[in-house]
Amino acid sequence: MKKIELYDTTLRDGSQTEGISYSVADKIKIARKLDELGVAYIEGGFPGSNPKDRMFFEEFKKHPLKNAALTAFGATRKAGVAAKDDPVFAAILHSGVRVATIFGKSWDLHVRDVLRVSLEENLEIIRDSVKYLVAEGLELIYDAEHFFDAYKHNRDYAMATLLAAQDCGARLLCLCDTNGGTLTSQLVAVIADVQKNVKLPLGIHVHNDLGLAVANSIAAVEAGCVQVQGTINGYGERCGNADLIPIVGILKLKMGLDCVTDEQLKELTEVSHFVSEISNMKQADNQPFVGKSAFAHKAGVHINAVYKNPKSYEHIEPERVGNVRRILVSELAGKTPILTKAEELKLQLKKDSPDTKRVVKLLQDLEHEGYQFEAADASFEILVKRALKQYKKFFELEGFRVIVEKRQKGTITSEATIKLKVGGVQEHTSSDGDGPVNALDNALRKALKGFYPVVSKMHLSDFKVRVLDAKDGTAAKVRVLIQSQDERDSWTTVGVSENIIEASWLALVDSIEYKLLKDGAVLPHE
Amino acid sequence: MKKIELYDTTLRDGSQTEGISYSVADKIKIARKLDELGVAYIEGGFPGSNPKDRMFFEEFKKHPLKNAALTAFGATRKAGVAAKDDPVFAAILHSGVRVATIFGKSWDLHVRDVLRVSLEENLEIIRDSVKYLVAEGLELIYDAEHFFDAYKHNRDYAMATLLAAQDCGARLLCLCDTNGGTLTSQLVAVIADVQKNVKLPLGIHVHNDLGLAVANSIAAVEAGCVQVQGTINGYGERCGNADLIPIVGILKLKMGLDCVTDEQLKELTEVSHFVSEISNMKQADNQPFVGKSAFAHKAGVHINAVYKNPKSYEHIEPERVGNVRRILVSELAGKTPILTKAEELKLQLKKDSPDTKRVVKLLQDLEHEGYQFEAADASFEILVKRALKQYKKFFELEGFRVIVEKRQKGTITSEATIKLKVGGVQEHTSSDGDGPVNALDNALRKALKGFYPVVSKMHLSDFKVRVLDAKDGTAAKVRVLIQSQDERDSWTTVGVSENIIEASWLALVDSIEYKLLKDGAVLPHE
Repeated sequence: MKKIELYDTTLRDGSQTEGISYSVADKIKIARKLDELGVAYIEGGFPGSNPKDRMFFEEFKKHPLKNAALTAFGATRKAGVAAKDDPVFAAILHSGVRVATIFGKSWDLHVRDVLRVSLEENLEIIRDSVKYLVAEGLELIYDAEHFFDAYKHNRDYAMATLLAAQDCGARLLCLCDTNGGTLTSQLVAVIADVQKNVKLPLGIHVHNDLGLAVANSIAAVEAGCVQVQGTINGYGERCGNADLIPIVGILKLKMGLDCVTDEQLKELTEVSHFVSEISNMKQADNQPFVGKSAFAHKAGVHINAVYKNPKSYEHIEPERVGNVRRILVSELAGKTPILTKAEELKLQLKKDSPDTKRVVKLLQDLEHEGYQFEAADASFEILVKRALKQYKKFFELEGFRVIVEKRQKGTITSEATIKLKVGGVQEHTSSDGDGPVNALDNALRKALKGFYPVVSKMHLSDFKVRVLDAKDGTAAKVRVLIQSQDERDSWTTVGVSENIIEASWLALVDSIEYKLLKDGAVLPHE
Repeated sequence: MKKIELYDTTLRDGSQTEGISYSVADKIKIARKLDELGVAYIEGGFPGSNPKDRMFFEEFKKHPLKNAALTAFGATRKAGVAAKDDPVFAAILHSGVRVATIFGKSWDLHVRDVLRVSLEENLEIIRDSVKYLVAEGLELIYDAEHFFDAYKHNRDYAMATLLAAQDCGARLLCLCDTNGGTLTSQLVAVIADVQKNVKLPLGIHVHNDLGLAVANSIAAVEAGCVQVQGTINGYGERCGNADLIPIVGILKLKMGLDCVTDEQLKELTEVSHFVSEISNMKQADNQPFVGKSAFAHKAGVHINAVYKNPKSYEHIEPERVGNVRRILVSELAGKTPILTKAEELKLQLKKDSPDTKRVVKLLQDLEHEGYQFEAADASFEILVKRALKQYKKFFELEGFRVIVEKRQKGTITSEATIKLKVGGVQEHTSSDGDGPVNALDNALRKALKGFYPVVSKMHLSDFKVRVLDAKDGTAAKVRVLIQSQDERDSWTTVGVSENIIEASWLALVDSIEYKLLKDGAVLPHE
């Protein structure tokens, strides 16, 4: 079976999306997730451009990826500077990668108007850059920026830039439709001509300015390209890059090509949602293969037909990509994913017991309200155990109040008051904080620490807020994800409400109960 | 120049989108807008299926469309019922349209498992249905449902269904990829074979389950189809239908085909946003041609190149589809983009004046604190004008207080109190809300609407919360982005604070001040 190399550039091209801004920790989490998905290459960023990217590459010197090759990205050397003196190349070599991806100019317009050097000098720059990095022992992927526009304007020059990279030791030539304006039929014709003129394997890197990025990537593979560059969920500047998510689905399920294993394919939906969470971008419900609506049936005639034969309105079995069928009228979601997840977490849920039915119903109702357990295993576990009465509540809330006050010249203050009961003993306490959620968090720990000293041994390490149904403006529902950690573990919990304070409270309580359960805490006076 | 017929089914297939539910008034507004855009056919719905659709068709008997042909949709006649006795056909004839679109079964699996009749009987049903409606004087478009899957399983039968419709008087045969699972190359091969066997003109109707709907529609036109069926913004069941927006852009600007006039093309961005508003769906920022980010540049290297020559990173001039270029101001970009952005917004900032230096310094400091103006033009404008003292503050805040309270069994309540002064007059008021920010929003409008009635003419349409420095857990800084809109415009503002209430407040105030400035509101008593 023919193998196609998946090359992910979410961390570089994807980070150019309007509204995306990754921290180093975000980038590391995404890289590890992509490694699990089975992509061949993960482009980490520009090690030469900023301290954030430098820190990112440091992490993988200490803790390498399992399977994927990490690549560092950069331009060909600066005009008038020897390759060995180019600081970007020094940074790439220092970054510890074994693969570099270097982009060069193919389009004469760019060489003249942007780079402002002669056409011959640009060829010299490409040769020098490739030669130098290859001599330093790196595998070199050459990205021919704007290749398709370049070809349209000056075919011979565009071809000469490819040959320059080929002759100097590049491993693969990746043809880029940087402006995303090329039709599928034009793209295929150009690739056919290139294949007559170069001997290296080809890759494809396209943007989505015409809405054709997935189609163009697939057509390029049919035409013989062996590497597909893209991003998770199609993130990227302007209209985005080719979305690797449907590309993986199509390569595996429609073309029978090898790129990830069948098991990894089942992670497709989870990976897509995970990356959208970390990126703080709303997942498109209609995203092919993995969207919430991708296998949702609303029209009555479709629903009836799907009951008779799912193939009647589904192009694949949703389970193959880890998605589920949803019947919208009756809200009958599948229970298989919940059972699978419970199994993963070693919770006792037997397939047809009444307990299981009750838990499944509860979780489905919560998901319907906007809960998402993909990124919140700890809340999932707490909810299942709570529903199965596998533990006694550690405390009873009697009430809380949060006050935020601002005066004309003064600063803003936040105060939370909490009244709760632990094993019959009442605790009533207050605390300030940097904002209402922090005040509530502080007050809750203060109230509990006398009963459960371990709550001082954990802290919150991440806090994410996602607005659902954004159309409702400030009255919209929000989903809060809280990540907590102690010396050994880290866990994530979730809360949903129209009230951000309540959503945070729900996630906070789950987080603390999870810690207490995990440490085998017992109710005092018992 | 070859003419391509645009056939819009937003009102029928588009209304099957999860989350879309059109009123009769919504449908009428969309139909009139599509008529202005210049589509050839507007599929209005099933006149036979519900009173809403019946009322919709009544409207156009009284007030016909200017250019587009309205079409009524329905299935072939029921098995065992004569065409003249089928109530759906009676309703179509009663609806006043001159064009009917009838879908029939092409796929033997559907005939057997869903329709549950013999293959021959289905052919008879198609013949009868087409014959009857044509005899009644209607132009008949025949939609061959699931045609591409049908062809794969039983080519000869699929072809026989087309011939049945052709022989009985259909005007055009539309090939449907109803399950959306067909690759572009497969689709083109099937169309070529069909063209050898039928003489009628062909149309194409595809779904987006592989992310290929736009590409497949375009490839079908290249292969000879003369009608493209799709929806505005790609609305539709599951992953949606082919998005007519990029299809129009490609047909006109990349293929030089006639479908709308150059003037109508300039309405493309507005039509897309209008339909997303009426549909109550969030517009995808990265939508090809018309998205807010479609011509937005964030990477420094792109911004510099676009200054030198916009063609370097833009596949067309955004004005041709009524969109605009945007230079995103982000921390990495230095002061050039700030000046350019100021110019775009027609703010007076001269390159080396002390005022400019002060404003640039202020914006850079704010960015350092976590502000991001790339998605918040309105805050950018307000900040610059405020710093240059180009307007007087519309009100003075004296203070606010927000209280969120939860009791053991009861629900959670949120109340905001605001004290402010407008031109020397004090206003002190309170309001409840769904959460603390909504309460604050309500209270602020309530306090201001007596002085500035236009604040009732705007509403918040999106609300985003991004946690910065997530490592600080619940004490982290948050950035709030608020999108607002009135009948004409939409604008985005930003606020940053460790306190989510304060961050929201800052964005709310900017949003309201922007509206007041825009509308030329003046301070009362002045």
